[in-house]
Amino acid sequence: MESSNFLRDVVIGMSDGLTVPFALAAGLSGAVDTTSIIVIAGIAEIAAGSIAMGLGGYLAGKTELDHYNTELKREYYEIENLRHREIEETKEFFASLGLDNEVQEKATEQIAKDPDKWVDFMMKYELGLDKPHPKRATKSAFNIGVSYIAGGLVPLSPYFFISTPFSALQVSVALTIVCLFVFGWAKSKIIGINPWWGALQVTLIGALAAAAAFGVAKML
Amino acid sequence: MESSNFLRDVVIGMSDGLTVPFALAAGLSGAVDTTSIIVIAGIAEIAAGSIAMGLGGYLAGKTELDHYNTELKREYYEIENLRHREIEETKEFFASLGLDNEVQEKATEQIAKDPDKWVDFMMKYELGLDKPHPKRATKSAFNIGVSYIAGGLVPLSPYFFISTPFSALQVSVALTIVCLFVFGWAKSKIIGINPWWGALQVTLIGALAAAAAFGVAKML
Repeated sequence: MESSNFLRDVVIGMSDGLTVPFALAAGLSGAVDTTSIIVIAGIAEIAAGSIAMGLGGYLAGKTELDHYNTELKREYYEIENLRHREIEETKEFFASLGLDNEVQEKATEQIAKDPDKWVDFMMKYELGLDKPHPKRATKSAFNIGVSYIAGGLVPLSPYFFISTPFSALQVSVALTIVCLFVFGWAKSKIIGINPWWGALQVTLIGALAAAAAFGVAKML
Repeated sequence: MESSNFLRDVVIGMSDGLTVPFALAAGLSGAVDTTSIIVIAGIAEIAAGSIAMGLGGYLAGKTELDHYNTELKREYYEIENLRHREIEETKEFFASLGLDNEVQEKATEQIAKDPDKWVDFMMKYELGLDKPHPKRATKSAFNIGVSYIAGGLVPLSPYFFISTPFSALQVSVALTIVCLFVFGWAKSKIIGINPWWGALQVTLIGALAAAAAFGVAKML
């Protein structure tokens, strides 16, 4: 679970990091004469994007934890003070599974014996909430932000060394397409879909975004 | 459920749309002499970002649906061909709730009578998978993409009409801060957290991203 969360964060950060700065740089390559402005715009985008995504990830994790704790308190309050209603809700859960009245009664009676287990059950199956890790939010913010920076520096790196935008663009396209493909392949392996098909999809999104940005900038 | 998915997509698209193009434009305002390059970079970013996020949303939805259908087939196969093991797994679920052996047996027996209900049960409670809406992926892509564009045009609009970057930046900051605050307030209301605190958080992320982008671009 730990490692799958880590990988999920890297995937979130890196897929946008590889795609958006790549497309922005490609777009500007069609519109300006020197790569210095592309480097500035690219780095500004990476700074903005990594903060927005990283803090976004932090807040999402924080909100999830707050929400869980609020609901947890409410359930403890309810089994104490609205016991009758909670008994009804627990019975309804078993009824929804298609169990007969006798089994509903017995199961509810057994679950209701232990308050902690009962609340656990309500959290998980009535509300569909899993307990989030308390430190998750901070870690998640950091992992997503750093992955975005790492991803974004790939398409931008050729512009550091080559002063003609169109020459830098060619190297950036080649480099980024390879990275998108490898990244898409690895990502698909992790989430368990066909890796070649997944790699193709990720690469196509990146290429499409870059082509659109290039086209739009050229038009203006 | 329908409307909550729609709102979720709008929130995803708009929070990044308001933040990243805002920060990029702010960053470039510290580095260039004319707003025309900011408009080009901003529109290129909005094109790239909306495609990356929209298609990203589409693929996420598509993958979720594929995954659900694969697991659904597997469960039907298993209750047909590995009935004994599935009976064990169903019993284990009830055991994990703290129910005694008799109730485990009876509940399992009753659930296993109807194959469709049984598979439904396994999907939901053994695997924790909810049935995704088949058209979700396409709708989601569209909603996220359009929300990103709508969000992104807010901070960029002053640069269309004002030719001095720093003057445009001042209008953009005022306009976007107000929009971030209103958006953060509405978002917090929807997800059920304190709206003032939520609005403040969203606004601070936007401001921080813009300040970082401005600072980094100024340094270069």
